[in-house]
Amino acid sequence: MFGARCLVRALRPCSSAPCPRHKPSARLSVRDALGAQNTKGERVKVQGWIRSVRSQKEVLFLHINDGSSLESLQVVADSSFDSRELAFGSSVEVQGQLVKSPSKKQDVELKAEKIEVVGNCDAKDCGFVHIHTPIITSNDCEGAGELFQVEPSSKIKVPEKNFFSVPAFLTVSGQLHLEVMSGAFTQVFTFGPTFRAENSQSRRHLAEFYMVEAEISFVESLQDLMQVMEGLFKTATMTVLSNCPEDVELCHKFIAPGQKDRLEHMLKNNFLIISYTEAIEILKQASQNFTFTPEWGVDLHTEHEKYLVKHCGNIPVFVINYPLALKPFYMRDNEDGPQHTVAAVDLLVPGVGELFGGSLREERYHFLEPRLARSGLTEAYQWYLDLRRFGSVPHGGFGMGFERYLQCILGIDNIKDVIPFPRFTHSCIL
Amino acid sequence: MFGARCLVRALRPCSSAPCPRHKPSARLSVRDALGAQNTKGERVKVQGWIRSVRSQKEVLFLHINDGSSLESLQVVADSSFDSRELAFGSSVEVQGQLVKSPSKKQDVELKAEKIEVVGNCDAKDCGFVHIHTPIITSNDCEGAGELFQVEPSSKIKVPEKNFFSVPAFLTVSGQLHLEVMSGAFTQVFTFGPTFRAENSQSRRHLAEFYMVEAEISFVESLQDLMQVMEGLFKTATMTVLSNCPEDVELCHKFIAPGQKDRLEHMLKNNFLIISYTEAIEILKQASQNFTFTPEWGVDLHTEHEKYLVKHCGNIPVFVINYPLALKPFYMRDNEDGPQHTVAAVDLLVPGVGELFGGSLREERYHFLEPRLARSGLTEAYQWYLDLRRFGSVPHGGFGMGFERYLQCILGIDNIKDVIPFPRFTHSCIL
Repeated sequence: MFGARCLVRALRPCSSAPCPRHKPSARLSVRDALGAQNTKGERVKVQGWIRSVRSQKEVLFLHINDGSSLESLQVVADSSFDSRELAFGSSVEVQGQLVKSPSKKQDVELKAEKIEVVGNCDAKDCGFVHIHTPIITSNDCEGAGELFQVEPSSKIKVPEKNFFSVPAFLTVSGQLHLEVMSGAFTQVFTFGPTFRAENSQSRRHLAEFYMVEAEISFVESLQDLMQVMEGLFKTATMTVLSNCPEDVELCHKFIAPGQKDRLEHMLKNNFLIISYTEAIEILKQASQNFTFTPEWGVDLHTEHEKYLVKHCGNIPVFVINYPLALKPFYMRDNEDGPQHTVAAVDLLVPGVGELFGGSLREERYHFLEPRLARSGLTEAYQWYLDLRRFGSVPHGGFGMGFERYLQCILGIDNIKDVIPFPRFTHSCIL
Repeated sequence: MFGARCLVRALRPCSSAPCPRHKPSARLSVRDALGAQNTKGERVKVQGWIRSVRSQKEVLFLHINDGSSLESLQVVADSSFDSRELAFGSSVEVQGQLVKSPSKKQDVELKAEKIEVVGNCDAKDCGFVHIHTPIITSNDCEGAGELFQVEPSSKIKVPEKNFFSVPAFLTVSGQLHLEVMSGAFTQVFTFGPTFRAENSQSRRHLAEFYMVEAEISFVESLQDLMQVMEGLFKTATMTVLSNCPEDVELCHKFIAPGQKDRLEHMLKNNFLIISYTEAIEILKQASQNFTFTPEWGVDLHTEHEKYLVKHCGNIPVFVINYPLALKPFYMRDNEDGPQHTVAAVDLLVPGVGELFGGSLREERYHFLEPRLARSGLTEAYQWYLDLRRFGSVPHGGFGMGFERYLQCILGIDNIKDVIPFPRFTHSCIL
């Protein structure tokens, strides 16, 4: 639609300014455009995504990025170019003259003669419904680490009767509640605090931390799930870089030199995929000595995760299909063998190790029921089994640790530095 | 800017269609426009705020509301009118022809000939920074009801040593943490779960509920605070009505007949303000018999709150300046007498009673210190006192119970019906 209007404008006889005769424009990457020396108004074409829009009375400023550089190219256009479609995230092709910028902020800028929207981006339309999953829950056996229990403070020393009639805990994940909601809303997410009562003093663990969790109905392959995960990582990062460039710059400049290049490297490349079995093979062949010997059937440790990411050239890597025995009851059985696996996926990233964890969920009643029975959980999870009895669908989801995500993009070594009021063993200040 | 462009367009010689000769247009309220019978293309002018925008290839649809009705007027315009400034919340003046609508959704619509943006609305620019205040806290004496204490589940029965070295509780309010942050960010807010371990089975209480809380530095009067509170209530409600009309309609139609009119009444009128002392006088003169006798120095009960709102014609009413002895240590001393009050404010709304609570905070060290000392809290709140020793500013804030807000606008009688997983005494399902 915008292209069509440009065309109309081009066909209209010019009034005051003479029409420039257009030579065919050379296509440039944003990196090459930014690096151009002694520009003299060469006519060029740049393709990329809009990172920011500033609409003034007579001038429109756009910042365009194509992944070739973390920096964006400033496009200056007449306000008549302005349109609702020129929005954050839209892809555009801009033709114009590369000129010296009058501002000190950048050396060059692109004076637009034509702007064509290649693909619209209506961010409100992604179709995920935000659910507030509860903080206090009676689910206690998801196997995600030790739980905090809650009781009224006046009765904590003599908890004969539980406040909620049953023992109640702080949530370790909103997943099971999201699974309930995804049975009605198809695509749901939550963003909230989760808790682990683990006695850990590491630089990657907190007793209270935030997770983005998503659950998607009618998903049948890990491939589809990984696409959403990679998309979330890259889109969120582009948004942060676009909305808070000064804050990111501060970290990249003073706290984590080199992080800017490392992040650019992550954004530019497609994330890799290896199976757990391949991962174990890679670790076994490593020249490095590990504290924990890698072996099929044993969980990956942080040292393993970090090695795998390095081995993959510091590109984030999905590890898929973990041993069934290592994972909780709700993950989908791959029905393979002799090494029996489930459709689980972890995303490992440079510096941090595990950032996302996800899986296809076991939607088949006759697989889920015996697994729960074997763990003695049938009664406690009757409501969960019922979700498979009435209108069950293939589905899957994942969680991303939010503070670890901030560590990863900002290059912050200690997780306690990316949350305003960190809580961990022996520490609950204020 | 948009007006100027319209002018340019108007001055341009028309090409295909003949220019309509404009008679002076009659100004209509949205309510009158919607109620127009047998419209024959009368030329009218409507002023109001944009509630929704739908931009199609050749047509632009706007929904305009001016508070005269909960329903909006559909404006149909040529896509050439489209502009970034025609955004949700912008105020506009639309001139055009009132015609029969071809759609079954409405009887009439306004065919726009001129659209002028009176005031822009860039919703991203309100300047409040979103802070995640912690869920687990060591603050235990804010006087907001009984607390939940947390310990690892393996040690809940023998909590000899605390996990965090000190007793730790679920937060009852993010206020004190927001006060820390407002000392750097000026305007901050949080939206998160809060907890009360009270043995209540009422229709207005939950053990886990959400609050929107805000804290604003450099605020010196309750008047300024009340303006933000009223603005939040009205803007949030307009947004809900605009974004989820079908959901609201469902409640108003089947669950709470009459609620639509009651809500319209709240939105149309300026909220009222009375002092606590006036409120007690009103209650004393009431013909109604109360279970709890109203008396100066005693807290208002739900029955009192509901009476006051009715007395005020079912318009939300701010009650200000409560007895110092009733309120927590952080509220600002009004230095009045003989009835000693603090600068506290509660907003009472129809159906629900108390919806917001807020106050100016005591920013003066020499007032705060003796009050903490009298309660034996000096040591525990040394950090809070320190905020008054270094760069203290006048400031204030408030909290709004989110589920009660939903009850209020939707007309839902029981708070357990506006949260997906309600938690209350003896109940923590899933």
